[in-house]
Amino acid sequence: MGESFGRWTLGDDEALLAVVTSANVACGFHAGDPLTLRRTCAEAVRRGVRIGAQVGYRDLAGFGRRFMEVPADELAADVLYQLGALDGIARAAGGRVAYLKPHGALYNAIVTHQAQARAVVEAVLAFQDGHGVALPVLGLPGSSFLELAAQAGLPVVPEGFADRAYRPDGTLAPRSEPGAVLTDPRAVAAQAVRLAGSGTVGSICVHGDSPDAAVLATAVRAGLAGGGFTVRAFA
Amino acid sequence: MGESFGRWTLGDDEALLAVVTSANVACGFHAGDPLTLRRTCAEAVRRGVRIGAQVGYRDLAGFGRRFMEVPADELAADVLYQLGALDGIARAAGGRVAYLKPHGALYNAIVTHQAQARAVVEAVLAFQDGHGVALPVLGLPGSSFLELAAQAGLPVVPEGFADRAYRPDGTLAPRSEPGAVLTDPRAVAAQAVRLAGSGTVGSICVHGDSPDAAVLATAVRAGLAGGGFTVRAFA
Amino acid sequence: MGESFGRWTLGDDEALLAVVTSANVACGFHAGDPLTLRRTCAEAVRRGVRIGAQVGYRDLAGFGRRFMEVPADELAADVLYQLGALDGIARAAGGRVAYLKPHGALYNAIVTHQAQARAVVEAVLAFQDGHGVALPVLGLPGSSFLELAAQAGLPVVPEGFADRAYRPDGTLAPRSEPGAVLTDPRAVAAQAVRLAGSGTVGSICVHGDSPDAAVLATAVRAGLAGGGFTVRAFA
Amino acid sequence: MGESFGRWTLGDDEALLAVVTSANVACGFHAGDPLTLRRTCAEAVRRGVRIGAQVGYRDLAGFGRRFMEVPADELAADVLYQLGALDGIARAAGGRVAYLKPHGALYNAIVTHQAQARAVVEAVLAFQDGHGVALPVLGLPGSSFLELAAQAGLPVVPEGFADRAYRPDGTLAPRSEPGAVLTDPRAVAAQAVRLAGSGTVGSICVHGDSPDAAVLATAVRAGLAGGGFTVRAFA
Repeated sequence: MGESFGRWTLGDDEALLAVVTSANVACGFHAGDPLTLRRTCAEAVRRGVRIGAQVGYRDLAGFGRRFMEVPADELAADVLYQLGALDGIARAAGGRVAYLKPHGALYNAIVTHQAQARAVVEAVLAFQDGHGVALPVLGLPGSSFLELAAQAGLPVVPEGFADRAYRPDGTLAPRSEPGAVLTDPRAVAAQAVRLAGSGTVGSICVHGDSPDAAVLATAVRAGLAGGGFTVRAFA
Repeated sequence: MGESFGRWTLGDDEALLAVVTSANVACGFHAGDPLTLRRTCAEAVRRGVRIGAQVGYRDLAGFGRRFMEVPADELAADVLYQLGALDGIARAAGGRVAYLKPHGALYNAIVTHQAQARAVVEAVLAFQDGHGVALPVLGLPGSSFLELAAQAGLPVVPEGFADRAYRPDGTLAPRSEPGAVLTDPRAVAAQAVRLAGSGTVGSICVHGDSPDAAVLATAVRAGLAGGGFTVRAFA
Repeated sequence: MGESFGRWTLGDDEALLAVVTSANVACGFHAGDPLTLRRTCAEAVRRGVRIGAQVGYRDLAGFGRRFMEVPADELAADVLYQLGALDGIARAAGGRVAYLKPHGALYNAIVTHQAQARAVVEAVLAFQDGHGVALPVLGLPGSSFLELAAQAGLPVVPEGFADRAYRPDGTLAPRSEPGAVLTDPRAVAAQAVRLAGSGTVGSICVHGDSPDAAVLATAVRAGLAGGGFTVRAFA
Repeated sequence: MGESFGRWTLGDDEALLAVVTSANVACGFHAGDPLTLRRTCAEAVRRGVRIGAQVGYRDLAGFGRRFMEVPADELAADVLYQLGALDGIARAAGGRVAYLKPHGALYNAIVTHQAQARAVVEAVLAFQDGHGVALPVLGLPGSSFLELAAQAGLPVVPEGFADRAYRPDGTLAPRSEPGAVLTDPRAVAAQAVRLAGSGTVGSICVHGDSPDAAVLATAVRAGLAGGGFTVRAFA
């Protein structure tokens, strides 16, 4: 969420915040002007929705979806900057950044890119130290990122995607592939139920920039309730 | 300080941090990539120098020195974003943002621009509320900004510039005017002594992006010591 | 047109290009990533629609709608850069930039701001000299910009807005005022007919970023045809 | 050259333009604000120095030195946009863009990255078509980029670097390696003579952002003259 930028609006944060328990909020590098972030955080706090920092590459033109070979020290500083920026806005709204989730190409890169994965972990540790709070991280199950984060003592939450196709190796099919993005509410809900039942994930994601994001999220909640699952923010 | 950006270096922060008691550190909107900010904050903490957030317009190409008619709600969010970003970096270094000082054209605009002055004050109040700490603000004596800040209960610190010429009305001569920037160490030191003796200012500024910033700052300290003044970070 | 940026889409250029005779195309500073510009220019050429360069302030976050006090030499260079960029893309598509129209806050500023008006004229003259083609300019009737452009020998085209309310002095009501933007197709068409009949304008504009831009433009064409006017690109 | 950006200056273009025959000028994406580009192009024209477009990734924070996985259609449009922008500025100064040379990480990527190499070639062909002029390209000898460009009928100019260390396979040692950048004028001149004598290159590059760029370039010219070589812009 929070992925509008100035004149350009994207996603219906208000509708989506009525359905979810945690919101991955952009931090200004791939999307999210400060006023948008402020409004999204205020609404999240009002709704009791947990705020996560969705940090990304500094690439507005590419929406953070293009891999960038950012050196580790630059990347760690970029992540720390974004974490602080969103946390300042979240705190002013009466909340705080409660977890971190990398965005787009960074999310995918640190499934295997050791140096960048370590840089993100380093930034989270530095943020934790500076604020005296634990900061859980979300990522792909089995990713280098989650492994390194766990080794460093960070709380890790493996997540599944209700609206994205998986490849046999457990990674996400790239958006450029046909069928990579699921759009049928029933298929999305079914995948969410499957993921919840698998016991492999602690969080289930629906993308906020899909045209029907709120519809999909509502279908997911209904599906999970029908499957006997209780939806709540991860601990 | 912190006004380098990627490949472009500006100012000798290390030399200057050895001389000053407070550092106005850029926040990324007019200058300051996150890695630079991290290094400058780390060195400031090591030196026991207080860190201030120098927030500015979102204008890298103009170095924040071109007035922008930013609506109040956007400006307040921009300031809050910058405050949080630098505070996250400062805290990770073991410090924190201890005060705010507007930069460049924003500094000059809110001498008289009520809506923008109010927006900056609003952002500082929101940051204070979110973090439970008082955040003093620096500005031009007699400015709308300091008046509104004082009315809102913020600690205000009027500041003087050792290296800039003043106009008779107490505002700064614009940089485009010949003689607006003082470069002779003796003249700069003399102006600092005059300002300190006037009792009108609580902080004296030397610009960090001048070629001889550290030389000028050293001359100021020597001049103030010779004039019987003790230099310390404002309370 | 051409006002999308990466992941953020704005306006339905394809639909609108089927209705208009001239397209004001963004140049990347207030909006318009290069791939969007390339697609819009290709479609304009295919449709026989004339391409104009809509140059603006370097302000993606503000969509060029916030006044910036850009010094004249910087502004002239910014305008020249944008003109060249769009012309390169238009020529690659088999067309070329056939006129210039300032965008947003720049458009409004140079109604009265002499230094910036002169800077834009200077850039157009420099572009003309460099390419050996005449480059007409569009602007508000009675503006300093059109006066200075005419004095400099540039072809000038005063334009009217079908979808914006006017103030008694002939300037546009600011967008922040209620009723400043007309959205009723009949009202928009009626204003177009009025403008065409007034003999004061050589071009009539419909904003491409309105949700119903193509509907409004179609209403304008029908209204003008019904009023006995022939719509064609200005000479 | 042209690698300053607003308040940040880099390189001494005036001194360097007195020594070289061709200038690789930034195009605004990795460096180069429009006013800087205008000044550099004016001085180049005054000196009779040929202007080349040094196109790069859209990455000011990384100075175009970080690889970006930009899709081919976006990259081609980005290159075309930059070519047009610089050409507009060069023509206004009485010159024109006479060749293209990719910058930084893009230069290195398209030694082997087929899709991006093809995208750059496609952009040059589109620019040629649009302007009716041939546009030679510079690149690393043996690179995919030069191969594809030659196959497409573009004039290609293999270039050597006087001030960079080579690896045994003929690629450049990465800047992160110690010794990758040569700084001793004698060593730089000697490498230039060696390259000129090898018959493998048609152009010899000295980096303009080195502190002693003009000194190194002067040493190269003296060395080449001493070695019996005539320096002139490539045909």
